[in-house]
Amino acid sequence: MDDRELLKTIQPLIGKTETADDCAAYPLQNDMLLISSTDMLHETTDFPKGMSEYQMGWMSVAVSLSDVASSGAKPVSVLVAAGLDKPERLKPFMEGACACAESFGAKVSGGDIDSHTEFTVVTTAFGVVAKQNYCPRTGAKPGDVICVSGILGRAQRALDGDDRYLPYLLTPKPQVSLGVSLAEHGATAMMDISDGLALSLWDLSEASGVALEIDSSSLPLTGDDAYAFDCGVFGGGDFGLLFTMPENLTDFRCSEYTIIGRVTKGKGVYFGGAELERRGFVHKW
Amino acid sequence: MDDRELLKTIQPLIGKTETADDCAAYPLQNDMLLISSTDMLHETTDFPKGMSEYQMGWMSVAVSLSDVASSGAKPVSVLVAAGLDKPERLKPFMEGACACAESFGAKVSGGDIDSHTEFTVVTTAFGVVAKQNYCPRTGAKPGDVICVSGILGRAQRALDGDDRYLPYLLTPKPQVSLGVSLAEHGATAMMDISDGLALSLWDLSEASGVALEIDSSSLPLTGDDAYAFDCGVFGGGDFGLLFTMPENLTDFRCSEYTIIGRVTKGKGVYFGGAELERRGFVHKW
Repeated sequence: MDDRELLKTIQPLIGKTETADDCAAYPLQNDMLLISSTDMLHETTDFPKGMSEYQMGWMSVAVSLSDVASSGAKPVSVLVAAGLDKPERLKPFMEGACACAESFGAKVSGGDIDSHTEFTVVTTAFGVVAKQNYCPRTGAKPGDVICVSGILGRAQRALDGDDRYLPYLLTPKPQVSLGVSLAEHGATAMMDISDGLALSLWDLSEASGVALEIDSSSLPLTGDDAYAFDCGVFGGGDFGLLFTMPENLTDFRCSEYTIIGRVTKGKGVYFGGAELERRGFVHKW
Repeated sequence: MDDRELLKTIQPLIGKTETADDCAAYPLQNDMLLISSTDMLHETTDFPKGMSEYQMGWMSVAVSLSDVASSGAKPVSVLVAAGLDKPERLKPFMEGACACAESFGAKVSGGDIDSHTEFTVVTTAFGVVAKQNYCPRTGAKPGDVICVSGILGRAQRALDGDDRYLPYLLTPKPQVSLGVSLAEHGATAMMDISDGLALSLWDLSEASGVALEIDSSSLPLTGDDAYAFDCGVFGGGDFGLLFTMPENLTDFRCSEYTIIGRVTKGKGVYFGGAELERRGFVHKW
Protein backbone atom coordinates (compact mmCIF):
# COMPACT_ATOMS: atom_id res chain seq x y z
CA MET A 1 0.00 0.00 0.00
CA ASP A 2 1.30 3.52 -0.79
CA ASP A 3 0.51 6.87 0.86
CA ARG A 4 -2.03 7.92 -1.81
CA GLU A 5 -4.10 4.74 -1.26
CA LEU A 6 -3.84 5.08 2.50
CA LEU A 7 -4.98 8.69 2.38
CA LYS A 8 -8.18 7.62 0.67
CA THR A 9 -9.15 5.52 3.70
CA ILE A 10 -9.47 8.66 5.83
CA GLN A 11 -11.06 10.87 3.16
CA PRO A 12 -14.57 10.49 4.69
CA LEU A 13 -13.18 11.75 8.02
CA ILE A 14 -11.15 14.72 6.85
CA GLY A 15 -12.93 15.69 3.63
CA LYS A 16 -12.18 15.19 -0.06
CA THR A 17 -10.92 18.73 -0.67
CA GLU A 18 -8.74 18.58 2.44
CA THR A 19 -7.05 15.29 1.52
CA ALA A 20 -6.49 16.41 -2.10
CA ASP A 21 -4.08 19.19 -1.15
CA ASP A 22 -0.79 19.59 0.71
CA CYS A 23 -2.18 22.75 2.32
CA ALA A 24 -5.13 23.49 4.58
CA ALA A 25 -7.02 26.77 4.23
CA TYR A 26 -8.80 28.44 7.13
CA PRO A 27 -10.86 31.64 6.69
CA LEU A 28 -9.71 34.72 8.62
CA GLN A 29 -11.31 38.17 8.73
CA ASN A 30 -11.47 40.45 5.65
CA ASP A 31 -11.59 37.66 3.09
CA MET A 32 -8.14 36.44 3.97
CA LEU A 33 -7.18 32.77 4.31
CA LEU A 34 -4.71 31.16 6.66
CA ILE A 35 -2.76 28.56 4.69
CA SER A 36 -0.87 25.87 6.60
CA SER A 37 1.08 22.79 5.63
CA THR A 38 2.93 20.13 7.61
CA ASP A 39 5.60 17.63 6.48
CA MET A 40 7.27 14.72 8.23
CA LEU A 41 10.79 13.80 7.18
CA HIS A 42 13.09 11.22 8.67
CA GLU A 43 16.61 10.18 8.16
CA THR A 44 16.40 6.77 6.50
CA THR A 45 13.76 7.60 3.91
CA ASP A 46 13.79 11.36 3.29
CA PHE A 47 17.25 12.80 3.79
CA PRO A 48 19.86 11.88 1.17
CA LYS A 49 22.82 9.93 2.58
CA GLY A 50 25.65 12.11 3.80
CA MET A 51 23.52 15.20 4.23
CA SER A 52 24.75 17.49 7.01
CA GLU A 53 22.48 18.57 9.85
CA TYR A 54 22.52 22.13 8.47
CA GLN A 55 21.31 20.84 5.10
CA MET A 56 18.63 18.71 6.78
CA GLY A 57 17.37 21.79 8.58
CA TRP A 58 17.38 23.80 5.37
CA MET A 59 15.55 21.08 3.43
CA SER A 60 12.97 20.49 6.18
CA VAL A 61 11.91 24.12 6.14
CA ALA A 62 12.13 24.36 2.34
CA VAL A 63 9.56 21.58 1.80
CA SER A 64 6.93 23.34 3.91
CA LEU A 65 7.63 26.82 2.52
CA SER A 66 7.28 25.33 -0.96
CA ASP A 67 3.88 23.82 -0.15
CA VAL A 68 2.52 27.07 1.29
CA ALA A 69 3.86 29.19 -1.57
CA SER A 70 2.42 26.78 -4.14
CA SER A 71 -1.06 27.67 -2.91
CA GLY A 72 -0.30 31.35 -3.53
CA ALA A 73 0.36 32.36 0.10
CA LYS A 74 3.52 34.04 1.29
CA PRO A 75 4.85 31.83 4.11
CA VAL A 76 5.60 33.87 7.24
CA SER A 77 6.20 31.49 10.10
CA VAL A 78 7.47 27.94 10.59
CA LEU A 79 7.25 25.58 13.56
CA VAL A 80 9.85 22.81 13.81
CA ALA A 81 9.31 19.60 15.81
CA ALA A 82 12.55 17.64 16.03
CA GLY A 83 12.88 14.07 17.33
CA LEU A 84 16.57 13.66 18.05
CA ASP A 85 18.67 10.54 18.40
CA LYS A 86 21.59 12.72 19.55
CA PRO A 87 20.97 16.12 21.16
CA GLU A 88 24.05 17.73 19.61
CA ARG A 89 22.43 17.50 16.19
CA LEU A 90 19.84 20.12 17.14
CA LYS A 91 21.93 23.27 16.89
CA PRO A 92 23.39 22.84 13.37
CA PHE A 93 20.01 21.53 12.24
CA MET A 94 18.23 24.63 13.55
CA GLU A 95 20.89 26.88 11.99
CA GLY A 96 19.97 25.45 8.61
CA ALA A 97 16.25 25.67 9.36
CA CYS A 98 16.49 29.33 10.38
CA ALA A 99 18.73 30.23 7.43
CA CYS A 100 16.25 28.76 4.96
CA ALA A 101 13.26 30.46 6.58
CA GLU A 102 15.01 33.84 6.62
CA SER A 103 16.18 33.49 3.01
CA PHE A 104 12.55 33.35 1.94
CA GLY A 105 11.08 36.00 4.23
CA ALA A 106 9.76 33.71 6.97
CA LYS A 107 10.79 33.00 10.55
CA VAL A 108 11.14 29.88 12.68
CA SER A 109 8.96 30.93 15.58
CA GLY A 110 8.70 27.82 17.72
CA GLY A 111 8.59 24.06 17.86
CA ASP A 112 9.08 21.02 20.02
CA ILE A 113 12.03 18.79 20.84
CA ASP A 114 11.84 15.15 21.67
CA SER A 115 14.19 12.17 22.02
CA HIS A 116 13.75 9.60 19.27
CA THR A 117 15.51 6.50 17.99
CA GLU A 118 15.60 7.92 14.46
CA PHE A 119 16.19 11.59 13.62
CA THR A 120 12.69 12.73 12.65
CA VAL A 121 11.48 16.19 11.78
CA VAL A 122 8.09 17.73 11.23
CA THR A 123 7.92 21.28 9.92
CA THR A 124 4.70 23.24 9.76
CA ALA A 125 4.60 26.48 7.79
CA PHE A 126 1.82 28.99 7.55
CA GLY A 127 1.05 32.00 5.46
CA VAL A 128 -1.80 34.34 4.67
CA VAL A 129 -3.39 34.96 1.26
CA ALA A 130 -6.37 36.95 -0.04
CA LYS A 131 -9.22 34.58 -0.85
CA GLN A 132 -9.29 35.56 -4.54
CA ASN A 133 -5.59 34.66 -4.91
CA TYR A 134 -5.77 31.28 -3.19
CA CYS A 135 -4.63 28.63 -5.64
CA PRO A 136 -5.29 25.01 -4.61
CA ARG A 137 -4.96 21.94 -6.83
CA THR A 138 -8.64 21.84 -7.65
CA GLY A 139 -8.98 24.79 -10.03
CA ALA A 140 -7.54 23.56 -13.37
CA LYS A 141 -10.05 24.07 -16.22
CA PRO A 142 -10.24 22.61 -19.73
CA GLY A 143 -8.53 25.05 -22.05
CA ASP A 144 -5.90 26.12 -19.48
CA VAL A 145 -2.27 25.61 -20.34
CA ILE A 146 -0.07 23.46 -18.07
CA CYS A 147 3.23 24.96 -16.95
CA VAL A 148 6.22 24.00 -14.86
CA SER A 149 8.96 26.18 -13.41
CA GLY A 150 12.66 25.37 -13.41
CA ILE A 151 14.55 22.47 -14.97
CA LEU A 152 13.24 18.96 -14.30
CA GLY A 153 15.40 16.17 -12.90
CA ARG A 154 18.29 18.00 -11.30
CA ALA A 155 17.67 16.63 -7.80
CA GLN A 156 17.36 13.07 -9.08
CA ARG A 157 20.65 13.37 -10.99
CA ALA A 158 22.31 14.52 -7.78
CA LEU A 159 20.74 11.59 -5.90
CA ASP A 160 22.23 9.33 -8.58
CA GLY A 161 25.68 10.74 -7.88
CA ASP A 162 26.11 13.65 -10.31
CA ASP A 163 27.77 16.25 -8.07
CA ARG A 164 27.12 19.14 -10.49
CA TYR A 165 23.52 19.08 -9.31
CA LEU A 166 24.16 18.67 -5.58
CA PRO A 167 23.01 22.16 -4.50
CA TYR A 168 19.55 21.49 -5.97
CA LEU A 169 19.29 18.41 -3.78
CA LEU A 170 20.97 19.59 -0.58
CA THR A 171 19.82 23.20 -0.23
CA PRO A 172 16.76 23.39 -2.48
CA LYS A 173 15.15 26.75 -3.13
CA PRO A 174 11.38 26.87 -2.71
CA GLN A 175 9.79 29.06 -5.41
CA VAL A 176 8.20 31.46 -2.94
CA SER A 177 8.07 34.73 -4.93
CA LEU A 178 7.10 32.92 -8.12
CA GLY A 179 4.25 31.07 -6.38
CA VAL A 180 2.82 34.24 -4.88
CA SER A 181 3.24 36.08 -8.18
CA LEU A 182 1.60 33.38 -10.29
CA ALA A 183 -1.40 33.21 -7.96
CA GLU A 184 -1.83 36.99 -8.21
CA HIS A 185 -1.62 36.79 -11.99
CA GLY A 186 -4.38 34.23 -12.38
CA ALA A 187 -2.95 30.72 -12.07
CA THR A 188 -5.96 28.40 -11.67
CA ALA A 189 -4.28 25.46 -9.89
CA MET A 190 -0.81 25.02 -8.45
CA MET A 191 1.37 22.56 -6.50
CA ASP A 192 5.03 21.79 -6.15
CA ILE A 193 6.62 18.78 -7.85
CA SER A 194 8.74 17.47 -4.98
CA ASP A 195 7.28 13.94 -5.40
CA GLY A 196 8.13 14.03 -9.11
CA LEU A 197 6.41 15.54 -12.15
CA ALA A 198 4.41 12.44 -13.18
CA LEU A 199 2.91 11.85 -9.74
CA SER A 200 2.18 15.57 -9.36
CA LEU A 201 0.39 15.65 -12.71
CA TRP A 202 -1.76 12.70 -11.62
CA ASP A 203 -2.53 14.34 -8.28
CA LEU A 204 -3.51 17.60 -9.95
CA SER A 205 -5.58 15.85 -12.60
CA GLU A 206 -7.51 13.95 -9.93
CA ALA A 207 -7.99 16.99 -7.68
CA SER A 208 -9.32 19.15 -10.52
CA GLY A 209 -11.28 16.39 -12.28
CA VAL A 210 -9.66 17.06 -15.65
CA ALA A 211 -7.33 15.37 -18.12
CA LEU A 212 -3.80 16.68 -18.63
CA GLU A 213 -2.14 16.34 -22.03
CA ILE A 214 1.59 16.85 -21.97
CA ASP A 215 3.49 17.84 -25.09
CA SER A 216 6.43 15.47 -25.35
CA SER A 217 8.68 17.98 -27.04
CA SER A 218 8.46 20.80 -24.53
CA LEU A 219 9.72 19.44 -21.21
CA PRO A 220 12.60 21.45 -19.70
CA LEU A 221 14.93 18.53 -19.02
CA THR A 222 18.62 18.27 -18.12
CA GLY A 223 19.45 16.52 -21.39
CA ASP A 224 18.09 14.80 -24.48
CA ASP A 225 18.48 11.15 -23.53
CA ALA A 226 16.17 8.63 -21.88
CA TYR A 227 17.96 9.01 -18.56
CA ALA A 228 17.32 12.77 -18.47
CA PHE A 229 13.67 12.07 -19.27
CA ASP A 230 13.37 9.51 -16.50
CA CYS A 231 14.98 11.86 -13.95
CA GLY A 232 12.80 14.77 -15.04
CA VAL A 233 9.47 12.97 -15.15
CA PHE A 234 9.71 10.30 -12.46
CA GLY A 235 12.52 11.56 -10.18
CA GLY A 236 11.77 13.30 -6.89
CA GLY A 237 13.25 16.24 -5.01
CA ASP A 238 12.86 19.06 -7.54
CA PHE A 239 11.31 22.22 -6.09
CA GLY A 240 9.64 23.56 -9.23
CA LEU A 241 6.00 24.56 -9.41
CA LEU A 242 3.42 22.84 -11.57
CA PHE A 243 0.51 25.13 -12.40
CA THR A 244 -2.28 25.80 -14.84
CA MET A 245 -3.58 29.13 -16.19
CA PRO A 246 -5.80 30.47 -18.97
CA GLU A 247 -3.76 30.76 -22.17
CA ASN A 248 -4.46 34.50 -22.51
CA LEU A 249 -2.75 35.11 -19.14
CA THR A 250 0.58 33.73 -20.24
CA ASP A 251 1.53 37.27 -21.19
CA PHE A 252 2.79 37.17 -17.59
CA ARG A 253 6.15 36.49 -19.12
CA CYS A 254 9.05 35.32 -17.06
CA SER A 255 11.91 33.09 -17.98
CA GLU A 256 11.20 30.88 -15.03
CA TYR A 257 8.52 28.64 -16.50
CA THR A 258 7.73 26.51 -19.52
CA ILE A 259 4.36 25.63 -21.03
CA ILE A 260 4.32 21.82 -21.20
CA GLY A 261 0.76 20.97 -22.22
CA ARG A 262 -2.94 21.64 -22.02
CA VAL A 263 -5.88 20.82 -19.73
CA THR A 264 -8.77 18.98 -21.43
CA LYS A 265 -12.07 17.45 -20.39
CA GLY A 266 -11.88 13.90 -19.02
CA LYS A 267 -9.43 12.28 -16.66
CA GLY A 268 -5.90 10.95 -16.60
CA VAL A 269 -2.50 12.19 -17.71
CA TYR A 270 -1.35 11.70 -21.30
CA PHE A 271 2.07 12.08 -22.76
CA GLY A 272 2.45 12.03 -26.53
CA GLY A 273 -0.98 10.37 -26.79
CA ALA A 274 -0.37 7.50 -24.30
CA GLU A 275 -1.22 7.41 -20.60
CA LEU A 276 1.73 8.55 -18.50
CA GLU A 277 2.93 6.06 -15.92
CA ARG A 278 1.85 7.02 -12.40
CA ARG A 279 5.21 6.66 -10.70
CA GLY A 280 7.29 8.87 -8.40
CA PHE A 281 8.30 9.39 -4.79
CA VAL A 282 5.80 7.66 -2.47
CA HIS A 283 5.93 6.19 1.01
CA LYS A 284 5.15 2.48 1.03
CA TRP A 285 4.21 -0.14 3.61
CA MET B 1 20.92 16.32 29.01
CA ASP B 2 17.18 17.07 29.19
CA ASP B 3 14.96 18.99 26.77
CA ARG B 4 15.04 22.22 28.81
CA GLU B 5 18.85 22.35 28.72
CA LEU B 6 18.90 21.48 25.04
CA LEU B 7 16.40 24.19 24.22
CA LYS B 8 18.74 26.78 25.73
CA THR B 9 21.40 25.92 23.13
CA ILE B 10 19.14 27.24 20.34
CA GLN B 11 17.76 30.24 22.25
CA PRO B 12 20.06 32.69 20.40
CA LEU B 13 18.70 31.40 17.07
CA ILE B 14 14.98 31.36 17.81
CA GLY B 15 14.69 34.04 20.49
CA LYS B 16 14.24 33.97 24.27
CA THR B 17 10.51 34.74 24.24
CA GLU B 18 9.92 32.13 21.54
CA THR B 19 11.74 29.33 23.35
CA ALA B 20 10.06 30.18 26.68
CA ASP B 21 6.59 29.25 25.48
CA ASP B 22 4.78 26.23 24.00
CA CYS B 23 3.02 28.59 21.58
CA ALA B 24 4.15 30.97 18.86
CA ALA B 25 2.26 34.23 18.26
CA TYR B 26 2.08 35.90 14.85
CA PRO B 27 0.35 39.28 14.33
CA LEU B 28 -2.64 39.36 11.95
CA GLN B 29 -4.76 42.34 10.90
CA ASN B 30 -6.98 44.23 13.38
CA ASP B 31 -4.85 43.56 16.45
CA MET B 32 -5.46 39.84 16.29
CA LEU B 33 -2.77 37.21 16.87
CA LEU B 34 -2.41 33.83 15.25
CA ILE B 35 -1.38 31.32 17.93
CA SER B 36 0.21 28.03 16.89
CA SER B 37 1.71 25.12 18.76
CA THR B 38 3.29 21.84 17.68
CA ASP B 39 3.90 18.60 19.64
CA MET B 40 5.73 15.41 18.80
CA LEU B 41 4.58 12.20 20.46
CA HIS B 42 5.78 8.68 19.86
CA GLU B 43 4.80 5.31 21.00
CA THR B 44 7.60 4.20 23.33
CA THR B 45 7.93 7.40 25.34
CA ASP B 46 4.65 9.32 25.12
CA PHE B 47 1.71 6.96 24.76
CA PRO B 48 0.83 4.87 27.82
CA LYS B 49 1.16 1.12 27.24
CA GLY B 50 -2.00 -0.51 25.96
CA MET B 51 -3.49 2.70 24.60
CA SER B 52 -5.72 2.14 21.56
CA GLU B 53 -5.12 3.97 18.28
CA TYR B 54 -8.33 5.94 18.85
CA GLN B 55 -7.03 7.10 22.23
CA MET B 56 -3.64 7.97 20.75
CA GLY B 57 -5.40 10.14 18.18
CA TRP B 58 -7.51 11.80 20.84
CA MET B 59 -4.51 12.47 23.08
CA SER B 60 -2.33 13.78 20.22
CA VAL B 61 -4.87 16.43 19.35
CA ALA B 62 -5.67 17.18 22.99
CA VAL B 63 -2.07 18.16 23.80
CA SER B 64 -1.95 20.79 21.06
CA LEU B 65 -5.45 22.16 21.72
CA SER B 66 -4.43 22.50 25.37
CA ASP B 67 -1.32 24.49 24.49
CA VAL B 68 -3.19 26.89 22.22
CA ALA B 69 -6.04 27.37 24.71
CA SER B 70 -3.58 28.01 27.53
CA SER B 71 -2.42 31.13 25.72
CA GLY B 72 -6.01 32.38 25.63
CA ALA B 73 -6.75 31.51 21.99
CA LYS B 74 -9.64 29.37 20.83
CA PRO B 75 -8.09 26.56 18.74
CA VAL B 76 -9.81 26.22 15.36
CA SER B 77 -7.69 24.00 13.15
CA VAL B 78 -5.30 21.08 13.65
CA LEU B 79 -2.80 19.47 11.27
CA VAL B 80 -1.75 15.88 11.95
CA ALA B 81 1.50 14.35 10.66
CA ALA B 82 1.54 10.62 11.28
CA GLY B 83 4.55 8.34 10.84
CA LEU B 84 3.11 4.85 10.69
CA ASP B 85 4.73 1.47 11.29
CA LYS B 86 1.51 -0.20 10.05
CA PRO B 87 -0.84 1.61 7.68
CA GLU B 88 -3.99 0.09 9.22
CA ARG B 89 -3.39 2.12 12.37
CA LEU B 90 -4.17 5.37 10.57
CA LYS B 91 -7.96 5.15 10.38
CA PRO B 92 -8.77 4.49 14.06
CA PHE B 93 -6.08 6.97 15.02
CA MET B 94 -7.63 9.68 12.85
CA GLU B 95 -11.10 8.85 14.20
CA GLY B 96 -9.83 9.67 17.69
CA ALA B 97 -8.02 12.77 16.44
CA CYS B 98 -11.13 14.11 14.68
CA ALA B 99 -13.41 13.29 17.63
CA CYS B 100 -11.20 15.22 20.02
CA ALA B 101 -10.91 18.22 17.70
CA GLU B 102 -14.68 18.37 17.14
CA SER B 103 -15.43 17.99 20.87
CA PHE B 104 -13.58 21.22 21.47
CA GLY B 105 -14.80 23.24 18.49
CA ALA B 106 -11.83 22.67 16.18
CA LYS B 107 -11.30 20.69 12.98
CA VAL B 108 -8.56 18.42 11.66
CA SER B 109 -7.98 20.14 8.36
CA GLY B 110 -4.94 18.41 6.94
CA GLY B 111 -1.66 16.66 7.60
CA ASP B 112 0.95 14.32 6.24
CA ILE B 113 1.43 10.55 6.29
CA ASP B 114 4.71 8.78 6.26
CA SER B 115 6.09 5.28 6.86
CA HIS B 116 8.15 5.04 10.03
CA THR B 117 9.72 2.32 12.17
CA GLU B 118 8.03 3.71 15.29
CA PHE B 119 4.50 5.14 15.38
CA THR B 120 5.21 8.88 15.63
CA VAL B 121 2.78 11.75 15.57
CA VAL B 122 3.13 15.51 15.34
CA THR B 123 0.03 17.64 15.81
CA THR B 124 -0.01 21.37 15.14
CA ALA B 125 -2.95 23.46 16.32
CA PHE B 126 -3.89 27.01 15.33
CA GLY B 127 -6.10 29.57 17.02
CA VAL B 128 -6.79 33.26 16.92
CA VAL B 129 -6.93 35.69 19.87
CA ALA B 130 -7.29 39.45 20.31
CA LYS B 131 -3.90 40.93 21.22
CA GLN B 132 -5.13 42.25 24.58
CA ASN B 133 -6.30 38.77 25.60
CA TYR B 134 -3.11 36.93 24.62
CA CYS B 135 -1.74 35.22 27.69
CA PRO B 136 1.81 33.83 27.38
CA ARG B 137 3.98 32.55 30.24
CA THR B 138 5.84 35.81 30.60
CA GLY B 139 3.18 38.01 32.24
CA ALA B 140 3.12 36.95 35.91
CA LYS B 141 3.60 39.95 38.24
CA PRO B 142 4.54 40.18 41.92
CA GLY B 143 1.29 40.39 43.88
CA ASP B 144 -0.64 38.11 41.49
CA VAL B 145 -2.16 34.96 42.89
CA ILE B 146 -1.20 31.57 41.41
CA CYS B 147 -4.03 29.24 40.44
CA VAL B 148 -4.47 25.79 39.01
CA SER B 149 -7.54 24.19 37.47
CA GLY B 150 -8.75 20.64 38.11
CA ILE B 151 -7.44 17.99 40.47
CA LEU B 152 -3.70 17.28 40.41
CA GLY B 153 -2.26 13.81 39.93
CA ARG B 154 -5.09 11.87 38.36
CA ALA B 155 -3.19 10.98 35.17
CA GLN B 156 -0.16 9.81 37.13
CA ARG B 157 -2.34 7.58 39.34
CA ALA B 158 -3.77 6.02 36.18
CA LEU B 159 -0.26 5.54 34.81
CA ASP B 160 0.60 3.78 38.08
CA GLY B 161 -2.30 1.37 37.54
CA ASP B 162 -5.27 2.92 39.32
CA ASP B 163 -8.05 2.27 36.82
CA ARG B 164 -10.48 4.73 38.45
CA TYR B 165 -8.45 7.52 36.86
CA LEU B 166 -7.97 5.95 33.42
CA PRO B 167 -10.24 8.38 31.47
CA TYR B 168 -8.06 11.31 32.62
CA LEU B 169 -5.04 9.58 31.10
CA LEU B 170 -6.52 8.02 27.97
CA THR B 171 -8.96 10.66 26.71
CA PRO B 172 -7.82 13.84 28.47
CA LYS B 173 -9.93 16.95 28.16
CA PRO B 174 -8.04 20.13 27.25
CA GLN B 175 -9.44 23.11 29.18
CA VAL B 176 -10.36 25.08 26.09
CA SER B 177 -13.32 27.17 27.30
CA LEU B 178 -11.67 27.82 30.65
CA GLY B 179 -8.43 28.99 29.02
CA VAL B 180 -10.22 31.40 26.70
CA SER B 181 -12.41 32.63 29.56
CA LEU B 182 -9.52 33.20 31.96
CA ALA B 183 -7.57 35.16 29.37
CA GLU B 184 -10.59 37.40 28.75
CA HIS B 185 -11.01 37.93 32.48
CA GLY B 186 -7.47 39.15 33.08
CA ALA B 187 -5.17 36.17 33.69
CA THR B 188 -1.61 37.54 33.43
CA ALA B 189 0.26 34.33 32.54
CA MET B 190 -0.96 30.84 31.67
CA MET B 191 0.25 27.40 30.57
CA ASP B 192 -0.93 23.82 30.88
CA ILE B 193 0.62 21.41 33.36
CA SER B 194 1.01 18.36 31.14
CA ASP B 195 4.70 18.01 32.12
CA GLY B 196 3.74 18.12 35.81
CA LEU B 197 2.98 20.97 38.21
CA ALA B 198 6.50 21.41 39.62
CA LEU B 199 8.18 21.65 36.22
CA SER B 200 5.45 23.98 34.94
CA LEU B 201 5.89 26.27 37.95
CA TRP B 202 9.63 26.44 37.27
CA ASP B 203 9.03 27.15 33.57
CA LEU B 204 6.54 29.91 34.37
CA SER B 205 8.78 31.42 37.06
CA GLU B 206 11.71 31.57 34.64
CA ALA B 207 9.63 32.94 31.73
CA SER B 208 8.13 35.72 33.86
CA GLY B 209 11.26 36.45 35.91
CA VAL B 210 9.46 36.12 39.23
CA ALA B 211 9.40 33.86 42.28
CA LEU B 212 6.41 31.61 42.94
CA GLU B 213 5.44 30.77 46.52
CA ILE B 214 3.12 27.83 46.81
CA ASP B 215 0.94 27.37 49.87
CA SER B 216 1.43 23.79 51.00
CA SER B 217 -2.08 23.45 52.38
CA SER B 218 -4.05 24.46 49.33
CA LEU B 219 -3.15 22.00 46.56
CA PRO B 220 -6.15 20.21 45.03
CA LEU B 221 -4.76 16.65 45.28
CA THR B 222 -6.31 13.21 44.92
CA GLY B 223 -5.66 12.35 48.57
CA ASP B 224 -3.86 13.37 51.77
CA ASP B 225 -0.83 11.08 51.69
CA ALA B 226 2.68 11.49 50.33
CA TYR B 227 1.85 9.42 47.25
CA ALA B 228 -1.02 11.74 46.27
CA PHE B 229 1.34 14.68 46.76
CA ASP B 230 4.00 13.11 44.58
CA CYS B 231 1.50 12.31 41.81
CA GLY B 232 0.00 15.80 41.96
CA VAL B 233 3.22 17.79 42.03
CA PHE B 234 5.70 15.71 40.03
CA GLY B 235 3.47 13.45 37.92
CA GLY B 236 2.78 14.20 34.26
CA GLY B 237 -0.26 13.94 32.01
CA ASP B 238 -2.77 16.18 33.79
CA PHE B 239 -4.47 18.69 31.52
CA GLY B 240 -5.15 21.42 34.07
CA LEU B 241 -4.16 25.04 33.56
CA LEU B 242 -1.65 26.90 35.69
CA PHE B 243 -2.23 30.65 35.65
CA THR B 244 -1.66 33.87 37.51
CA MET B 245 -4.00 36.84 37.95
CA PRO B 246 -4.34 39.98 40.06
CA GLU B 247 -6.02 39.07 43.36
CA ASN B 248 -8.90 41.53 42.80
CA LEU B 249 -9.87 39.65 39.64
CA THR B 250 -10.51 36.39 41.41
CA ASP B 251 -14.15 37.48 41.70
CA PHE B 252 -14.24 35.58 38.38
CA ARG B 253 -15.57 32.71 40.45
CA CYS B 254 -15.80 29.27 39.05
CA SER B 255 -15.50 25.96 40.79
CA GLU B 256 -12.86 24.84 38.32
CA TYR B 257 -9.79 26.40 39.88
CA THR B 258 -7.95 26.71 43.16
CA ILE B 259 -5.65 29.48 44.38
CA ILE B 260 -2.41 27.73 45.35
CA GLY B 261 0.01 30.56 46.07
CA ARG B 262 1.35 33.98 45.27
CA VAL B 263 3.83 35.60 42.87
CA THR B 264 6.66 37.53 44.53
CA LYS B 265 9.79 39.37 43.42
CA GLY B 266 12.87 37.22 42.91
CA LYS B 267 13.29 33.86 41.27
CA GLY B 268 12.61 30.20 41.93
CA VAL B 269 9.70 28.14 43.18
CA TYR B 270 9.07 27.70 46.90
CA PHE B 271 6.84 25.29 48.65
CA GLY B 272 6.22 25.77 52.37
CA GLY B 273 9.37 27.94 52.55
CA ALA B 274 11.79 25.52 50.82
CA GLU B 275 12.77 25.39 47.16
CA LEU B 276 10.54 22.97 45.25
CA GLU B 277 12.37 20.21 43.45
CA ARG B 278 12.53 20.81 39.69
CA ARG B 279 11.31 17.43 38.55
CA GLY B 280 8.66 16.20 36.12
CA PHE B 281 8.14 14.81 32.65
CA VAL B 282 11.16 15.59 30.46
CA HIS B 283 12.76 14.02 27.43
CA LYS B 284 16.34 12.90 28.12
CA TRP B 285 19.35 11.86 26.09
